[in-house]
Amino acid sequence: MASSSTAAPEYGVEPLRLNVSRDFCAFIAGFKAEDLPDAVVHESRRGVLDWIGCALAGSRHPTIPKLLAAMGALGSAGRASVIAHDLKLGHIEAAIVNGQIGHVLDYDDTHMDGVVLHTSSPVLAALLSVAESGSFSGLDLVAAYAAGFEAGVRVGKASPGHHDGGWHLTGTLGTIAAGVAVGRMLGLDAARLTYALGIAATQAAGMQQNRGTMSKSFHAGKAASNGVLAGFLAREGVDSSDEIIEGKRGFSRTFSSGSKPEALLDGLGRDWQILRNGYKPYACGIVVHPLIDGMIALRRRGGIDPARIERVEITVNPAAVRITGVAEPKTGLQSKFSIYHSAAVSFLDGDAGIAQYSDARALAPEVVELRRKVRVSIDEGFRRDEARVAVVDAGGRHEAHVEHAGGTVDNPMSDAALEDKFLANAEMAVGGARAREIAETVWRLERLPDVRELLRLCS
Amino acid sequence: MASSSTAAPEYGVEPLRLNVSRDFCAFIAGFKAEDLPDAVVHESRRGVLDWIGCALAGSRHPTIPKLLAAMGALGSAGRASVIAHDLKLGHIEAAIVNGQIGHVLDYDDTHMDGVVLHTSSPVLAALLSVAESGSFSGLDLVAAYAAGFEAGVRVGKASPGHHDGGWHLTGTLGTIAAGVAVGRMLGLDAARLTYALGIAATQAAGMQQNRGTMSKSFHAGKAASNGVLAGFLAREGVDSSDEIIEGKRGFSRTFSSGSKPEALLDGLGRDWQILRNGYKPYACGIVVHPLIDGMIALRRRGGIDPARIERVEITVNPAAVRITGVAEPKTGLQSKFSIYHSAAVSFLDGDAGIAQYSDARALAPEVVELRRKVRVSIDEGFRRDEARVAVVDAGGRHEAHVEHAGGTVDNPMSDAALEDKFLANAEMAVGGARAREIAETVWRLERLPDVRELLRLCS
Repeated sequence: MASSSTAAPEYGVEPLRLNVSRDFCAFIAGFKAEDLPDAVVHESRRGVLDWIGCALAGSRHPTIPKLLAAMGALGSAGRASVIAHDLKLGHIEAAIVNGQIGHVLDYDDTHMDGVVLHTSSPVLAALLSVAESGSFSGLDLVAAYAAGFEAGVRVGKASPGHHDGGWHLTGTLGTIAAGVAVGRMLGLDAARLTYALGIAATQAAGMQQNRGTMSKSFHAGKAASNGVLAGFLAREGVDSSDEIIEGKRGFSRTFSSGSKPEALLDGLGRDWQILRNGYKPYACGIVVHPLIDGMIALRRRGGIDPARIERVEITVNPAAVRITGVAEPKTGLQSKFSIYHSAAVSFLDGDAGIAQYSDARALAPEVVELRRKVRVSIDEGFRRDEARVAVVDAGGRHEAHVEHAGGTVDNPMSDAALEDKFLANAEMAVGGARAREIAETVWRLERLPDVRELLRLCS
Repeated sequence: MASSSTAAPEYGVEPLRLNVSRDFCAFIAGFKAEDLPDAVVHESRRGVLDWIGCALAGSRHPTIPKLLAAMGALGSAGRASVIAHDLKLGHIEAAIVNGQIGHVLDYDDTHMDGVVLHTSSPVLAALLSVAESGSFSGLDLVAAYAAGFEAGVRVGKASPGHHDGGWHLTGTLGTIAAGVAVGRMLGLDAARLTYALGIAATQAAGMQQNRGTMSKSFHAGKAASNGVLAGFLAREGVDSSDEIIEGKRGFSRTFSSGSKPEALLDGLGRDWQILRNGYKPYACGIVVHPLIDGMIALRRRGGIDPARIERVEITVNPAAVRITGVAEPKTGLQSKFSIYHSAAVSFLDGDAGIAQYSDARALAPEVVELRRKVRVSIDEGFRRDEARVAVVDAGGRHEAHVEHAGGTVDNPMSDAALEDKFLANAEMAVGGARAREIAETVWRLERLPDVRELLRLCS
């Protein structure tokens, strides 16, 4: 029984449509780097500095030798540097390694405005890999880096509900951010940049199911390499749909329960997304940062003996529990996603840095004992950067309320604090003198004649 | 206002769970190649033969030079051969190129049992790339190839609704199939094969939005390279979730509206998925094959003057219109997804091979004139391999009903027909003598001491 009938439509009649992917790419391909607002240039410097620090520190993580062994077995060789190693790989493989190095400590910058996106690991790993395929200035890098934020964050906003779908946004939106950033860096015209967006988006991947495993930071590296591939293919004229975000079977509808394509264009060229980037004072999932601020504040007030604590009461936004609900972490990587571990270790150590998320600390008896006393409540009215903490002991109830976690847009890290974090991170890998040299170079990034100069300092 | 409260669960109590990903991988890692049923071995030979033919023919497609130019710019060099080229690339890059070469004509095998999956392009491009990283026998290849079908098709069945979600399954399930196949070829144990599955699944990507563009066949190549990467990383101990398919934020729930994890294990080791593979007599989307059979049958009956046809009436399963509804294809690639073009060109030419899906044929005036007379009706009761066609002219109404399209499981291509297709495809790239030599080699694939012998014949 024929239930419906379709025929070819009338010829010459094209339905009216809002081609936001194409319009977005026309802007990205066309803006002039020299006209970028000073604030955008300065935030780029801050982002690059912070990320290089995280990558230098991450380069010593036990995951990395496994990754490098695989690249060796794959016979990769080429022109692209691996950060903090005396090693060159192909552009695709170097992007994978550097992206994972940047994200493995979960210490890298996080954009929290409508998305939860570690933009720099995919974008900078991709751009630094591409930087060794030719000659690109620091200003080229700044423009491409800012373009990556526009793409990643705006596509996320165009796809509301994407984060709830089980995706790891640093993998999915990170791929899109990296692809557009690479396309901009390579100087693609609007049509080819639209292909780069299309080829990137169709590679977007990464599942939250892998949280707490080495595959989580792999998502960042894979996103970087997907972006490199997208840019290089598009440059040669490999094509794609020109409505990959808004199309009927495009990104927003496939990866999200909702579609809001106009978010790609709203305020484009005025509201630069990089200006709302955040930096992490702590080496763990950002949603637990406000409660860590609170626990450290209580410790500093003094008068509480950890051994006599009866219970710890934490109140947070629901996302914190959804993302960091691991009760009994067995490894350092898992402990980054444990609200219980984070509350306990930050009170005991007065910090939540790299050392607090080691395998040893995840299993330390005094940490395990205290984290079992942590009770978590959800308050739907709390922002993601807000928390209330209370420690109860024989002496009573000690409380702290954190309105905005440190490092977020409403309570930002100063340039000086960011540089301190960078120096501490970088010194582990390259020593103090080289670390300061890198910092000086990045603070004048937009005047650097060739990005390879920066890469030489980092390897 | 605290709306709910969560606490760490009791210690030592693990919820009972069905760990299908782990159990599936234990089987795949453990089965003995020498115990494979003869039918599986023979279907492997058929699949490999058909795919190599498609790849040899595809190696001359105008998309491929663009792809190779990008690989050149990426500075890729290594040990892995590009089919029908005198060129070696890195394993990752060769997998991309060979996968795209295999799928670019849309002429490659298609599994239609609960999925629509071009399994061989991702799986064989991955395995042949890996074959040059060491010494692997033809029987190793057969076992890994069969393993790829198990993974790709079963994960698809475990995720009902996946195809309706906008995904291109050759990209998504193809990545999973390739990752498991490579893991089996590398001889990973059950635990590491579970990582390979996890690392593959978390890279799964590819959107139907890119149908009709060069990105569609790129999905197959990218899936192959994702699989290579998954296998090599897992071998080094890069870990992942061990419940990537059935987990709360795993593949089935993220990529599908439904989850049926038991499909991974039902009949495993008895019902080999490769036995339900299908081969394409025509170089286009498989859902239009039954109507092409019908149009060619009407032409053969004779007595119809194409210039005097008033209209063509086609009745098909709804999927045909959803997937191949392009009314006015402008390129050969687009015409592969046009039910209108397929009906017209197959009647005019008496075939629907590579020549019928060229740019020239997509724009030929007599094809355009006839395709504008095609009217399509949907019948929900029709199977995907079924169609009714009718041509109406002054002489009346000429009808044909196709129960099962040729090349499908219920109307399979014979070994002889498959070899004819192979020889026609292969001769274009390597000439008749070499084509016959390849065929003879593949018909004794399971006795081949080293797969590199086969690769040498194809390059």
